[in-house]
Amino acid sequence: MALIVQKYGGTSVGDVERLRHVARRIVEVSEAGNQVVVVVSAIAGETDRLLQLAHQITETPNARELDVILATGEQVAIGLLSLAIQAGGSKARSFTGTQVRILTDNVHTRARILNIDVERIRQALREGEITIVAGFQGVNAEEEVTTLGRGGSDLTAVALAAALNADVCEIYTDVEGVYTADPGLVSTAQKLPRISYEEMIEIASLGARVLQARAVEYAKNYNMSIHVRSSFTKNPGTLVVQEDQDMEKVAVSGIAYDKNEAKITITGVVDRPGIAAKLFGRVAEAGIVVDMIVQNISQDGHTDISFTIPRSDFHKASELVDGVAKEIGAGQILGDDRIAKVSIVGVGMRTHSGVAARMFTALAAENINIMMISTSEIKVSCVIEEKYTELAVRVLHDAFQLGVQPIGEG
Amino acid sequence: MALIVQKYGGTSVGDVERLRHVARRIVEVSEAGNQVVVVVSAIAGETDRLLQLAHQITETPNARELDVILATGEQVAIGLLSLAIQAGGSKARSFTGTQVRILTDNVHTRARILNIDVERIRQALREGEITIVAGFQGVNAEEEVTTLGRGGSDLTAVALAAALNADVCEIYTDVEGVYTADPGLVSTAQKLPRISYEEMIEIASLGARVLQARAVEYAKNYNMSIHVRSSFTKNPGTLVVQEDQDMEKVAVSGIAYDKNEAKITITGVVDRPGIAAKLFGRVAEAGIVVDMIVQNISQDGHTDISFTIPRSDFHKASELVDGVAKEIGAGQILGDDRIAKVSIVGVGMRTHSGVAARMFTALAAENINIMMISTSEIKVSCVIEEKYTELAVRVLHDAFQLGVQPIGEG
Repeated sequence: MALIVQKYGGTSVGDVERLRHVARRIVEVSEAGNQVVVVVSAIAGETDRLLQLAHQITETPNARELDVILATGEQVAIGLLSLAIQAGGSKARSFTGTQVRILTDNVHTRARILNIDVERIRQALREGEITIVAGFQGVNAEEEVTTLGRGGSDLTAVALAAALNADVCEIYTDVEGVYTADPGLVSTAQKLPRISYEEMIEIASLGARVLQARAVEYAKNYNMSIHVRSSFTKNPGTLVVQEDQDMEKVAVSGIAYDKNEAKITITGVVDRPGIAAKLFGRVAEAGIVVDMIVQNISQDGHTDISFTIPRSDFHKASELVDGVAKEIGAGQILGDDRIAKVSIVGVGMRTHSGVAARMFTALAAENINIMMISTSEIKVSCVIEEKYTELAVRVLHDAFQLGVQPIGEG
Repeated sequence: MALIVQKYGGTSVGDVERLRHVARRIVEVSEAGNQVVVVVSAIAGETDRLLQLAHQITETPNARELDVILATGEQVAIGLLSLAIQAGGSKARSFTGTQVRILTDNVHTRARILNIDVERIRQALREGEITIVAGFQGVNAEEEVTTLGRGGSDLTAVALAAALNADVCEIYTDVEGVYTADPGLVSTAQKLPRISYEEMIEIASLGARVLQARAVEYAKNYNMSIHVRSSFTKNPGTLVVQEDQDMEKVAVSGIAYDKNEAKITITGVVDRPGIAAKLFGRVAEAGIVVDMIVQNISQDGHTDISFTIPRSDFHKASELVDGVAKEIGAGQILGDDRIAKVSIVGVGMRTHSGVAARMFTALAAENINIMMISTSEIKVSCVIEEKYTELAVRVLHDAFQLGVQPIGEG
């Protein structure tokens, strides 16, 4: 008898038909003799509806009250899924984050999980009940409702799986797994049978929204394997696991892209200690998360600084930077919100040379201009004009021969 | 400094504008130097929406899971109201039934309040916070979410007011108070400045939905005055208080009606001990609540039994009674779901004679046939054809001169 943690996202429980389908699927696994713990997100669109309600009242809702409101989305979902399973004749019981006791810190709207008391779940499992847990939410030491941030249900599932020492943590989504590239863009894209935690974290934070990056980090810390798979088919998906030697044989595992960024450049910045700290300190204070930062070597004691931010923060950031630029006596502000970030990811990069060069060559061959470059140990990202995104992804997929041979199996 | 408990219903917080309006009203009371505890219902329509979702999945939803789902309606409302108050610059804090700790028994969907731990509310009040509590919901000893049944937010408010030893419990609604009759039917209907708990319980259970009957009983037990008033005006409403001698001077305080009932008659029932027990035992097992029961004296060892039930249970009850009638060898089953119950209510009935006779005479004068009669110490109810409801209410209002002199002031 295995202990299986499954997580279903908002589209998997998007309407009554899908809820019933998911319920049948869960019951099958249970009837095959397994203990099943299910984590569920709010029904698709519900979290946005609740956010909108709160924002109709105030543009800056108090985070504590926002969490009280947002947590109801998952609470409705666990009740409905539990009913759907019971309607099929099986035993089920729902738990909120408060009831399980998923203890978090006090940082409302993006709390961190501190501890999970699994005793109540274990008891329900012993009594033969399929256990349904609300994703995305927890409770702090003062019994206040907290939430874990966007995609937080993934984190709930992984943390529960780790706390329960589960045999597997399955994350169900509307795609079949993790691909070498977006199959919607690249017809030859292949499903990766396995991918390392590190690669998955890069891919998750690069705009491919199959898994929350924090959830993968958590899984990595506890060495909990994640199986990313589709709730609509029974095909095996992608296993997110610890890196092994086979993985290094492939230089690049996948191509990711992100169209949700914008770029701001300040030219003629005096090259003096403390200027960057002042600029990015101000941006951080405004709650804007900066992604890439590029600063070139200084010429004549002046330099240019470019950085990327979420596109939704573009106007706010532009105004802010305008003010800072005047204070520090910088030159021009150049903004561009029609950019995209295209990235290659792979643990094999550490041992393969010339990977970045191959990327730049492939883009250059199509006359795609690279505006910014940023690298990490297992990733190279280029900012390009947004209109070239699809072309760039296809070209890179070909350049690294991701469509021609089975990937991840050496 | 007074401690005031206020309860706002679903229509009072029906949209963003109304929420803001209610928030301003609460802040005014707070800024006048009072401590304010606010109980709030789900936004109008939300509880029905959630019920519908559950019923789409199964016709017989598990009560525990239904409570998990339904409780979210009030949870969203407390968060939104708290945000609206904070947006006006005041301090506010929301509490779910679990957080306050409104301890109930285990009877899901219609739990009884056992105990309220007010320490957390007192602490919030000491810190100068307007305290917003979710109505309708509680938590049982196993930390499971429970709900108190329709209109349960009234009960939450009264129970909180009693536990906090509040100076007043204000129930805000969309009418100005309790009237001698429905002002929509009777143009001369007057607002009652005061009404006794007993009368209010009768009126509440007779279909005038300003206050939940259980809440009034709770208030009576703790001698907590309730002020029923409108959230749209500042006019004083109706005080629901302990009966005093002045009240007895008036024979009838008000006329109530209820169109949500249906009537079933079984003719030719053998007049033998145990028959009624069998019949109504079966009806109760099916979860159908019987209101009036009338059995006439027996003739030739046979009798007729009539009773009324909620109209929504009419078909279910008819089928059921059909089966029982065959078992007990009764005669015909007669059903009628186009009936109404019209009632006169007043503590003065105890000391005034001829009240019932005056009622029957007034109805007879309009040729309104009385199908069933039921009386209590302070009430007389008649079942009539539904189409005569409005006429009957007006005729009775006139017959007891409710429209001509100030009522309840002796």
